[in-house]
Amino acid sequence: MRVLLIVAYDGSNYSGFARNNNVPTIEGALNDAIGRLTGQPVEVIGASRTDAGVHALCNVAVFDNYSSIPADRFAAALNTKLPDDIRITRSYEVEPDFHPRRRDVRKIYEYRILNTPVELPTERLYSWHIGKGLDTDLMNKAARHLTGRHDFSSFCSSNGNHMQDKTRTVHHIDVSRNADIVKIKVIGDGFLYNMVRIIAGTLAEAGMGRLKPEAIVEILQARDRRAAARTAPPQGLTLARIEYL
Amino acid sequence: MRVLLIVAYDGSNYSGFARNNNVPTIEGALNDAIGRLTGQPVEVIGASRTDAGVHALCNVAVFDNYSSIPADRFAAALNTKLPDDIRITRSYEVEPDFHPRRRDVRKIYEYRILNTPVELPTERLYSWHIGKGLDTDLMNKAARHLTGRHDFSSFCSSNGNHMQDKTRTVHHIDVSRNADIVKIKVIGDGFLYNMVRIIAGTLAEAGMGRLKPEAIVEILQARDRRAAARTAPPQGLTLARIEYL
Repeated sequence: MRVLLIVAYDGSNYSGFARNNNVPTIEGALNDAIGRLTGQPVEVIGASRTDAGVHALCNVAVFDNYSSIPADRFAAALNTKLPDDIRITRSYEVEPDFHPRRRDVRKIYEYRILNTPVELPTERLYSWHIGKGLDTDLMNKAARHLTGRHDFSSFCSSNGNHMQDKTRTVHHIDVSRNADIVKIKVIGDGFLYNMVRIIAGTLAEAGMGRLKPEAIVEILQARDRRAAARTAPPQGLTLARIEYL
Repeated sequence: MRVLLIVAYDGSNYSGFARNNNVPTIEGALNDAIGRLTGQPVEVIGASRTDAGVHALCNVAVFDNYSSIPADRFAAALNTKLPDDIRITRSYEVEPDFHPRRRDVRKIYEYRILNTPVELPTERLYSWHIGKGLDTDLMNKAARHLTGRHDFSSFCSSNGNHMQDKTRTVHHIDVSRNADIVKIKVIGDGFLYNMVRIIAGTLAEAGMGRLKPEAIVEILQARDRRAAARTAPPQGLTLARIEYL
């Protein structure tokens, strides 16, 4: 029986989702907890291999359960085995061939920027601090040039596979301000390595008036990582939702 | 010259504001940073001696500066000496007799409750998780009985001074919900030991339907800590603002 887990985590203390020997990862913690619960070795398959320090409200992982534990009991049972910075919010049975990285999916990321003269300690783990005032109108104007189907090579860190097709569809980007927090919501069908963080770093430049919104067109056309701005730091990013269509 | 500091902190790693040998405190960290900056031993006076684990956006501390550093430069200079969970958001000169614990003051606290079936890791450091649904209407009805000038003995932990006058004025309590977060905002002229956390714990009981809103009247009349509900945990509490009138 294939079991799907909805996984929420604070990424601060992990080297990302994907398993990596000798360093703590979300995948490693899930395999370990499921193994201790069922008594059987397990390797989960995750939907989004989030970077080190990135958070999630609802990443998805599946595994094949050969124990007698019912699918919907895994959430509560695993939460007693997991560290308090990882929680399973729901678990249920899916078709045996369900693969969480199939392409007919919509992912929603949120990037938070704290826009105050001095950083606030209670926001430091979940936002990028920018002291200079951000103009969200300029950020939204720039964002409009990113929506649609594009080759996002300029928004992909060079660690990415060079042979890979870098075409992705960004359905929607919305930049909004609530008091001192500027939130960038990005909805797309899939994202390249560091793509949302490079988008956030580039929109921040636009918001500070250091990059014209129209410059995004040339940055995309360059198909060169060096054309876009810096990669925004990981702690501002949260995988907010994954929708299977 | 007396210098006033507006101090923001994440209380997670501190045994409260007030200095205490051998354990990390906000006051100790401030004294240390100012001492290293000015080369002179300093003891700050804080406005609110928040408990272990409680956060602040704007606590107030003053000290007497005998160095040549201008008052308004302390914020930026101290931020280079302080750990990243403490930040000075502003510094300026005040009258030499200004005392931050004088009585003509208004303090605003916010208590955050995460009201979801399963706790979310990214909220765990700054909220109290309650799985059972909370009815904010009931909480507001209960809160109405707490506003005004009362003897708050039932809302003061026994560690408090028994001879102390326990009369305080609560100007306003407002309970509001934003998605999964229930926020209790409490405005008063001063608060007893653990008072806001006992108010939060008691309003949560009302919100779960386990305490009638009118029962608050009897709890106040009892003048006995055992009459009120449990003390809510510290990480949900933030000192949001102090206004000198």
